Amino acid sequence: MKIQLTDKVIKRLTLYHYILFDYIEKNIEFISSPQIAKLLNIDDSQVRKDIKLLNNTGKCKVGYEVKCLKKSIEKMLGFENPKNAFIIGAGNLGMALAKYTNFKDYGLNIMALFDIDKSKVDVVVNFKKVFDVEKLPDLAKKLNVEIAILTVPRAYAQETADFLIKSNIKYIWNFTPTVLKVPSDVIVWNENLIGNFLHFTLNHN
Amino acid sequence: MKIQLTDKVIKRLTLYHYILFDYIEKNIEFISSPQIAKLLNIDDSQVRKDIKLLNNTGKCKVGYEVKCLKKSIEKMLGFENPKNAFIIGAGNLGMALAKYTNFKDYGLNIMALFDIDKSKVDVVVNFKKVFDVEKLPDLAKKLNVEIAILTVPRAYAQETADFLIKSNIKYIWNFTPTVLKVPSDVIVWNENLIGNFLHFTLNHN
Repeated sequence: MKIQLTDKVIKRLTLYHYILFDYIEKNIEFISSPQIAKLLNIDDSQVRKDIKLLNNTGKCKVGYEVKCLKKSIEKMLGFENPKNAFIIGAGNLGMALAKYTNFKDYGLNIMALFDIDKSKVDVVVNFKKVFDVEKLPDLAKKLNVEIAILTVPRAYAQETADFLIKSNIKYIWNFTPTVLKVPSDVIVWNENLIGNFLHFTLNHN
Repeated sequence: MKIQLTDKVIKRLTLYHYILFDYIEKNIEFISSPQIAKLLNIDDSQVRKDIKLLNNTGKCKVGYEVKCLKKSIEKMLGFENPKNAFIIGAGNLGMALAKYTNFKDYGLNIMALFDIDKSKVDVVVNFKKVFDVEKLPDLAKKLNVEIAILTVPRAYAQETADFLIKSNIKYIWNFTPTVLKVPSDVIVWNENLIGNFLHFTLNHN
């Protein structure tokens, strides 16, 4: 009985989760939908509609008890079954993502980083080790990793993707400003930072 | 005669731009809409529809001449009038964004970085200097900067945002996993990396 969630619902649920996290840190036990709506500058009815979706996965009086609502969102978004991933490219962006506070809490388990630069090999960041990229095929198999987060420079994006695909990577979260050519059984998700930025500024000027 | 572009159109146009950039590097002069469609795994009619939007801003036979199509997209998306921005937080993510190949080509002109950590002050990354955050109010005024890219740790996000707002920052591109409380005349764009990731994995498993 899996519910297909739209992009927008997923993003809102993640934001609700941020708010609930903050409430828990402040030891606040209850929250109302208008409080959430106000913080996000959206309509209260939207919040209630989203929370209603969660009722399918939990039995608590969601929409009021902070901890319970947080748990319901986590269940709905699959945080309990984290997915293993590798970061390819241990530059600033790769390092930033490896350090990113709480990817693990959100269902993304970064196992290791890879780089072609030997001087970066064996560096440890946030308990994750940088390996020579040559070791990737073997480690992907051993650790059962099918997700790669691509943060190499633009000029190396396609050849790195080709190498990942040969190593049985099936999902590429692409942070490079390139469109990758991949076979039909490989899924690419373009993290389009520039598009996001433009959406932000073009619609507010 | 400004056309309001949806999020999806902007993102697709940015991806077309990546492809055109690549074609120019390879000295390929012409491109067809089916070629673009195939690379992005979308419908040809969608590409033609998007390109049609551009006809309003250019006179060349767009959809065929690579350089001309690229220029039309740049005009449509406002790359010719770059916006000035500051990065707040010179950690890995802030540094990665400061280095990000070509934000400037895409209309985002990062003027400087700011940090509270004195050991980072005066570091130069990609021709951009890190300043003590105390200098921000003055520099924002002098350089006429209204956009801040927030990459500080979660725990400092709200107090940093409060400080930015006091310094007349009007747009916050928020990379922290928090929901910021801001007055109604300040626009926050949440760069929801976790939401993006979840959308990617939840809908492909």
